This record gives sequence, structure tokens and C-alpha cells, in this order.
Amino acid sequence: MASIFSKIVAGEIPCHKVCEDDHHLAFLDIMPLVHGHVLVIPKREVDYIFDLEPAELAALWQFAQRVSHAVRKSVTCKRIGTAVIGLEVPHAHIHLVPMQTVGDINFTKEKLHPSSEELMSMAALIQSHL
Amino acid sequence: MASIFSKIVAGEIPCHKVCEDDHHLAFLDIMPLVHGHVLVIPKREVDYIFDLEPAELAALWQFAQRVSHAVRKSVTCKRIGTAVIGLEVPHAHIHLVPMQTVGDINFTKEKLHPSSEELMSMAALIQSHL
Repeated sequence: MASIFSKIVAGEIPCHKVCEDDHHLAFLDIMPLVHGHVLVIPKREVDYIFDLEPAELAALWQFAQRVSHAVRKSVTCKRIGTAVIGLEVPHAHIHLVPMQTVGDINFTKEKLHPSSEELMSMAALIQSHL
Repeated sequence: MASIFSKIVAGEIPCHKVCEDDHHLAFLDIMPLVHGHVLVIPKREVDYIFDLEPAELAALWQFAQRVSHAVRKSVTCKRIGTAVIGLEVPHAHIHLVPMQTVGDINFTKEKLHPSSEELMSMAALIQSHL
């Protein structure tokens, strides 16, 4: 069965898209740790990120780098932290998390629940910096 | 002033080295979140990881990928998670964290304090899988 992220790639499930190229997609986490929390995925469905071919891993991080610069210009933060956990959705994804403190990357804490309007506006803001 | 990691690269401060090439170094975190927690750094001192040149970022992640496979063979874990926070030491570093649960990557929790003997033995074990 296709992962939820493959369904997003296929357009079967909507997302708040931030950036896309032939092989990668970046979209807002709808239950972010902080506002501006973005997920970056390879379009090819691979569960474990380190199972990507080395060239694919490299391209994914270079795409994430480009997105990170736009996120950093869009929200108040010291820098963009990253995390790859991978114990829930079986489709490799990088979390880009605008950070003010080390506690901002802690996936056991309560998530935010921004409205659709807030998410649309955040996606547009990040896109404007790409 | 050179970062503590540049001093490790220069051999002025010892570390429990896991793997090294011309441009990268991997060594054990001496206050790990879990046993087998490894730090991967570029030898060139750059504070923010996304300020690396895209080719450097790619090479760093490919080096980390190689190390991650050896760590995964060395400790009991579901997979190797990664995090880049970067609010403390001003020298880019990737945390490779053997994960059993999502709570294993949480830098606000209490760290472990393995003995030198435990660290030496862990470094040797990981090296044996490289």
C-alpha cells in the first residue's frame, strides 16, 4: 500500500506545498512542533532514509538546504534544525524545524494545531522566499 | 578561537574516533542520549550546517550514511535517527542516534555518562563494522 506521503506526491491527499522538483517535495507538517515546521521527502517511496542510494541522499539534503534558507527567512528563529526519526510513516522524511531552543526538537511534546488559513499563509510566505 | 571540534580534528583534544576521511570525522558523543550515539562533523569549521557548500553538505551526509550502517550493526535499535541542532557548539555536527522510540531524540533529557572503557569498547565495535 502506498504511504500517506506517496499519496500526497500523487495528489490523492492534499498538502500545503512549499517547494517541489522532479524528485523531491517539501510541505508543511500539519501538526508542527513550531510554526514553519516543514517536511522534505524523496518522491520515491523508501522507508529508511539511509537506504536511499548515496546520490539520492545527497540530492535530498541539497533540496532540503534550499528549502531551509526560505524557511529561515519566513519565521523568527536562530536557525533551522533537522531531524529524521522514521518510526511512524514508512516513507523517509526530513523534519526542518525553525529553532529558538534545543527543546524545539522533541517529538514527544504536544504538537501545534494551526488552522488551514494559517498553514496556507505560512506556505505562501515560505514560497515567496524561494 | 578554534571550536572544540576543530581541536579534536587537530588532535589537541582526544576523542573516541569511529571513522575518518580527508574531510570528515565521526566520534562518540561522550554524553550520549543512548549508547552508540555518534557525532559526525566536517573537518572544515563551519558553524551552521546549511552554510556548507551544497557539495560539502552532500559529502557529509554520504559519510554519515556509511557510519550509520556500522552503528546500526553495533547496537540494538530499530534504525539510526539523526538530528542537527547546532545551538551549542559552533561547528556543524550531525547526531546519529540509535533509536528504539521517538523519545530517544530529545536533547533536553538527562544524558548518559558511560565510562572510558565503555566508550573505547563501543568505538571498537563500530569500527569493526566499517
